[in-house]
Amino acid sequence: MGIREDLTSLCAAFAEIHDLHAASSLLSWDQETCMPQKGLAGRAPALAALAGLCHEKLCAPRVGDLLERLAERTAAEDLSAEEAALVREARRDHERASKVPAAIVREVAEASSKALVAWQQARAASRFQDFAPHLSRLVSLKKRTAEALGYAETPYDALLDEFEPGVTTSFLQRLFLELRAELKPFVQEVLAARKVDAEPVRRRYEPARQIAFATEVARSMGFDFEAGRIDRAAHPFCSGIHRGDVRLTWRSSDDDLRPALFGVIHEAGHGLYEQGLPEAWARTPLGEASSYGIHESQSRLWENLVGRGRAFWKHFLPRLQDFFPGVAADLDVEAMYRAVNEVTPSFIRTEADELTYNLHIVLRFEIERDLFAGKLALEDLPEAWNNGTEALLGIRPGNDAQGLLQDIHWSMGSFGYFPSYTLGNLYAAQLFDAALSDIPDLEARIAQGDLLPLREWLREKVHARGRLLQARDLIRDVTGREPGMEAFLAQVRRKFGEIYGV
Amino acid sequence: MGIREDLTSLCAAFAEIHDLHAASSLLSWDQETCMPQKGLAGRAPALAALAGLCHEKLCAPRVGDLLERLAERTAAEDLSAEEAALVREARRDHERASKVPAAIVREVAEASSKALVAWQQARAASRFQDFAPHLSRLVSLKKRTAEALGYAETPYDALLDEFEPGVTTSFLQRLFLELRAELKPFVQEVLAARKVDAEPVRRRYEPARQIAFATEVARSMGFDFEAGRIDRAAHPFCSGIHRGDVRLTWRSSDDDLRPALFGVIHEAGHGLYEQGLPEAWARTPLGEASSYGIHESQSRLWENLVGRGRAFWKHFLPRLQDFFPGVAADLDVEAMYRAVNEVTPSFIRTEADELTYNLHIVLRFEIERDLFAGKLALEDLPEAWNNGTEALLGIRPGNDAQGLLQDIHWSMGSFGYFPSYTLGNLYAAQLFDAALSDIPDLEARIAQGDLLPLREWLREKVHARGRLLQARDLIRDVTGREPGMEAFLAQVRRKFGEIYGV
Repeated sequence: MGIREDLTSLCAAFAEIHDLHAASSLLSWDQETCMPQKGLAGRAPALAALAGLCHEKLCAPRVGDLLERLAERTAAEDLSAEEAALVREARRDHERASKVPAAIVREVAEASSKALVAWQQARAASRFQDFAPHLSRLVSLKKRTAEALGYAETPYDALLDEFEPGVTTSFLQRLFLELRAELKPFVQEVLAARKVDAEPVRRRYEPARQIAFATEVARSMGFDFEAGRIDRAAHPFCSGIHRGDVRLTWRSSDDDLRPALFGVIHEAGHGLYEQGLPEAWARTPLGEASSYGIHESQSRLWENLVGRGRAFWKHFLPRLQDFFPGVAADLDVEAMYRAVNEVTPSFIRTEADELTYNLHIVLRFEIERDLFAGKLALEDLPEAWNNGTEALLGIRPGNDAQGLLQDIHWSMGSFGYFPSYTLGNLYAAQLFDAALSDIPDLEARIAQGDLLPLREWLREKVHARGRLLQARDLIRDVTGREPGMEAFLAQVRRKFGEIYGV
Repeated sequence: MGIREDLTSLCAAFAEIHDLHAASSLLSWDQETCMPQKGLAGRAPALAALAGLCHEKLCAPRVGDLLERLAERTAAEDLSAEEAALVREARRDHERASKVPAAIVREVAEASSKALVAWQQARAASRFQDFAPHLSRLVSLKKRTAEALGYAETPYDALLDEFEPGVTTSFLQRLFLELRAELKPFVQEVLAARKVDAEPVRRRYEPARQIAFATEVARSMGFDFEAGRIDRAAHPFCSGIHRGDVRLTWRSSDDDLRPALFGVIHEAGHGLYEQGLPEAWARTPLGEASSYGIHESQSRLWENLVGRGRAFWKHFLPRLQDFFPGVAADLDVEAMYRAVNEVTPSFIRTEADELTYNLHIVLRFEIERDLFAGKLALEDLPEAWNNGTEALLGIRPGNDAQGLLQDIHWSMGSFGYFPSYTLGNLYAAQLFDAALSDIPDLEARIAQGDLLPLREWLREKVHARGRLLQARDLIRDVTGREPGMEAFLAQVRRKFGEIYGV
């Protein structure tokens, strides 16, 4: 077989896998937005069947043969750089999948579909014990997955690698130790300084109009509603079923603008990435995101560096006042800018401010690491969670709902995912600095409500490159520097130093 | 391998096929209710991939081997009646699927996904020529399908058999000739008699409240909204994703109560069947409907024999008046009963009255038959449609939207489906007569708004039996008579004879 035929066959095989993933994504989205209660009995096995088939197709010996032949030709430089990247990423997917027995993949899919519902109920009742058996099952399945995948030092490494290729437990340990050392005293300084008044965002903004306003912001960001939609769900998320079908969800608070507004900006940031993935490589591994950390860099960049920036509110405060004439008329940009940058130790990660957010991640990282190292028993988890929160943030959760039941991830079997959030924050800071230097009038454009130059820059530099570059290479290529925490620390010191006068 | 192991393996194989069908159903439902416009580029191949996989799994030689061994044991009477029926129906599915090449199955799925969108646009613009290339492609693919399936007399037989096992073109030809001969003169008598006033249903009922009222009716019918939902779509349909997840759609008219109300009752009739399928046989071929005709008997029974009955309005007119105090206060049961039984030649099948409805089906049957016999060219179709409508109903469609573009079926590649509607009407009449004789106070219960005795009867006699009996056997078993048109003709002659005084 010629190299062109092999590439065509490889793309056809991955197109089918992509289609099954797309079906699976839609079933998952539907489960959280539309599915009637009794639908679960059918949904769980359907998701498991799709996961099993994806896995089977990905592991097919024929795919292995194609990849082996193509990898040889890559070495011989018969392939373009993009084709070589396609083979590299396809091979990574194939090899990871081939190591995990099909039975485990199906069991994880079925268990997590059930766990998701159990988590929703357990969170509503704030009873960890109702969720514990599901968590126990998933941890045990994921331990088996890690053993099957193999790792250099510790099982948790194998799980981290799924979300952020190449990142290890020991690397994160060093990173988080340093970040914690830098952040904790600064947070304490900020908290000790005069408090910012969050009253401007804590008013009674009517939820339906909150979403109308947030939708306008998403539209200004360039989110294409002909290639996407937005719906209510228990948890905000973005589901990229296809680059032409990207779905955001929201939830709102009656007396706080932030969960809905920053939730939508965040998810729309993810959504822009999905909508901007390279059309030419659609339905291939290159048509996907580079890593979860890079994905998160997109959502956090829009949420924090745009949405919580002064320039943003110069345009959007008047618009907010148009939506809520009776509620927001008396506000000025400075009051709003300060309000959305309130730093306060809080229980809920997704609603944490830019500064304390990473401390939430440090806690989750330490707990997952210890859980998978066998150093933490499930029954000790609530205590460990509450102690950890207290040590890092100085507050103690009053119940499981505001403690260890707050996040959806474990119910989906996603362990090793959380560190991507902090990596995303660090990448976002570096990317935004690069955007500021590439687009000299960026802040002025944002202040006019013109967010498209930034989207175009991100599309060219990040979105349209799909998985062509791995996270570290992508960041180095776009920003000219290795990924690190300097840009992030400089930005938060500058911003919160000014706001809090420290 | 023992017979028990073989049965278990067979059920596992069909469970996976069922799961893929469920995923496919959800993708189709979503395409018509939620999917953003640009999602089609990803949806069409995803549906095609699922259809291809279902087909592949159904044709698997392993399934063939299992079925062969089990069929031998059926003959030896080692299986219970239910197990024997399972093997019989599984074998029918396997054999039909095995005859059609996978490539055609995928092409049909992909072509129909695109055709569905083209149909929606062509209908909106009332331009048949925009839809014609899609129809041409689907007809040609379905001709190839028919050749692959094989048939005794004519290719159309092979397509009919998919929807109503055992029914042939020549059987329908005789049936429809007789039905037409009986109906046409009676319709003319009715139309010549004093006209019924439909003004009571032609008022400005506000659409959102129409749906609230229709939803109350569906709930009274026993449709379980914890195992289902209802959404707006361009075309009313019922999607049974799983017996715990059955989805109805509606559309409404601003100045006519009928499309929404009778649409919902009709689809809820289908929905009750799906929700009532045997739980013990879920995810096996026995856990499905007996035939499309039987399915349609459920929707038409509720729509016409309940919803357009006098007893129904004794309870539901006062409820309608509660929903629309300013609109319906002056109405009485008799006026409403007459209004919902207006007989008038109309263009749109789904909105046709009980009496002229079957003439719409006769037209579609004749056109499909001629199309597949090569006696009718695609470019002559609009003319043939309009001439046929005029010959049967005495009116001529003014445009394609109210003519041959009105129905969704062809865009889904469903040829040979329409006759099931008339068979459903005939079955419904027989079943309702049987219910009236089994439940002596049925009319009185309906008049009290108590529709559950009827649902329970249908559940026991029809729904919970799944595919245990084929349509003809089921009707004979429940009603004690062969399927025929006598009950239907007697009912409409009685009802419309009384209303119209003929």
